[in-house]
Amino acid sequence: MSTVNLSLDDLRALTVRAFVASNTTETNAQSVADALVHAEADGQSGHGISRIPSYAGQSKSSKVDGHAVPEIVSESASAIRIDACSGFAYPALDLAHARLSEMAHATGIAAAGVFRSHHCGAAGYHVERLADKGLIAFLFANTPKAIAPWGGREALFGTNPIAFAAPRRNNPALVIDLSLSKVARGKIMVAAQEGRPIPEGWAFDSEGKPITDAKAALAGTMAPMGDAKGAALVMMVEILAAALTGANFGFESSSFFDAEGPSPAVGQTLITLDPDAFSGGAFADRLETMIQAVFDQPGARLPGSRRIEAREKAHADGVEIAEALYKNIRKIAGE
Amino acid sequence: MSTVNLSLDDLRALTVRAFVASNTTETNAQSVADALVHAEADGQSGHGISRIPSYAGQSKSSKVDGHAVPEIVSESASAIRIDACSGFAYPALDLAHARLSEMAHATGIAAAGVFRSHHCGAAGYHVERLADKGLIAFLFANTPKAIAPWGGREALFGTNPIAFAAPRRNNPALVIDLSLSKVARGKIMVAAQEGRPIPEGWAFDSEGKPITDAKAALAGTMAPMGDAKGAALVMMVEILAAALTGANFGFESSSFFDAEGPSPAVGQTLITLDPDAFSGGAFADRLETMIQAVFDQPGARLPGSRRIEAREKAHADGVEIAEALYKNIRKIAGE
Repeated sequence: MSTVNLSLDDLRALTVRAFVASNTTETNAQSVADALVHAEADGQSGHGISRIPSYAGQSKSSKVDGHAVPEIVSESASAIRIDACSGFAYPALDLAHARLSEMAHATGIAAAGVFRSHHCGAAGYHVERLADKGLIAFLFANTPKAIAPWGGREALFGTNPIAFAAPRRNNPALVIDLSLSKVARGKIMVAAQEGRPIPEGWAFDSEGKPITDAKAALAGTMAPMGDAKGAALVMMVEILAAALTGANFGFESSSFFDAEGPSPAVGQTLITLDPDAFSGGAFADRLETMIQAVFDQPGARLPGSRRIEAREKAHADGVEIAEALYKNIRKIAGE
Repeated sequence: MSTVNLSLDDLRALTVRAFVASNTTETNAQSVADALVHAEADGQSGHGISRIPSYAGQSKSSKVDGHAVPEIVSESASAIRIDACSGFAYPALDLAHARLSEMAHATGIAAAGVFRSHHCGAAGYHVERLADKGLIAFLFANTPKAIAPWGGREALFGTNPIAFAAPRRNNPALVIDLSLSKVARGKIMVAAQEGRPIPEGWAFDSEGKPITDAKAALAGTMAPMGDAKGAALVMMVEILAAALTGANFGFESSSFFDAEGPSPAVGQTLITLDPDAFSGGAFADRLETMIQAVFDQPGARLPGSRRIEAREKAHADGVEIAEALYKNIRKIAGE
């Protein structure tokens, strides 16, 4: 596959131009570009600039409102409710981020619920930014339906990511970022495109039977990680991201990919804690003690370690973009 | 097996007498009895009155301080830090519960970190009580080491429960309560006692190889639910319950069962949110919409439904206690 090497700055600038040319304000384009380029640098290409054609299609068709200005619709000492106004998720989460870090430092813990939102990309991005301010953070997000309730056969809930970050002394934050399906839906999509079967246990057909045909799997349901326990966590995230915020459930949401129909209007809940309010100053030392105990075991590693390596390389050497994708983004930008 | 039928009131009174006779204050005995009898009524016998002999042994030996008075050692608008003072976990979590429900109603969200704590029993109990006050709640608790970090071979982290509860209109709260091991450690203990093998995939030996010998499994490590993703969640809970609170990690903690050694001094973090602060009043309706969508699927059910059935039966008919256990508890109570 022929590729183009771009510095992160050049990639970000191109991404902004592509969105501005696609019915999106400069402010929103910058917010989306920050998130997509961050994911690309981290090697999370499924949430990186490969999303630009689909996102831009949605802003052109106004399925996503590229001109939306997210709004705090209610606020108490430690809680805010944010209307993403059917725009991209990133500007709404930027607003949450700015307000929550002040609140959590003042009261010990704070949370934001975001509704009328869209795909939030690499979930770890949103919590890592709070960890970079010395805070612990969680993100719970719901996504279009893919997983059945336990015992049922029809998809109701999304693959629903949980992300968690904790600040480390003299090191990048420890970030845990996982979707609650057994495998990423993207892996099944790739198998379907290439006409390959998938391993048994990844997905079920409409009768609830394990299935290896990738195309049929996309029409069926995905297995949750950890079976019944994982299915319970999927429901927990659906309640936090959608019921708590007043957003659409996975079974009410439109696709994050195509340009048709109404906004997905899903939700995200972001919770952040100031460790100093809970640990009597012990947190940073205690976390390093735990991490050292992990490192003391041959073969053991921290979640996210490959992501940090990819990021360092991307900052030094830029990233390789498939030439076809690069040309497509240039075309979207009108270049 | 011959059993004795006891009403919940009689069982609770007997439990209180057993603890008061075991170097525990009346106040602490009542707190512990409330939790153990609640678990017993819910059919969660592993966290029910079967714990009395072990708990009472620990208070008699002063491994657990039955006279401890848990203390709020720091407080901000939405955060409290509680020293369980090497006593039972339940009185410390009672204190958290009372204060957090006020705080969350005032500020939208509040959390308590508990350190120098002990086994918190059925994790769902602590969150359900907050849901009964109209709040959403999480509990994260760490437990003595049983699970290796991903890629490693030695146990570092506990089976670390996550509990979550959401209040329902005209119905008991929806409660999700799961430990992060693939199966409960109790199942492996029973197999070891009965000399039966365990299925492959439940546990690993000290070389990290899957193992079916139950006794060897108890000396090895337990599989996390959902493999690498579950192992990441185990670490997340360890950070929240222990690093955040300044408590002992699983690998530093003594047993919850035997009467020797220092207090386990583990931690718990309890987070509670007022749905009204986030949902613009939509929460109760939205949750029922989701639950109806689950019930609309034949075979699908809510987490915790068997627990609620057991509870209703226990309130109506009392509970059956193994005669040997009943006699043992009577003996502990000096009767």
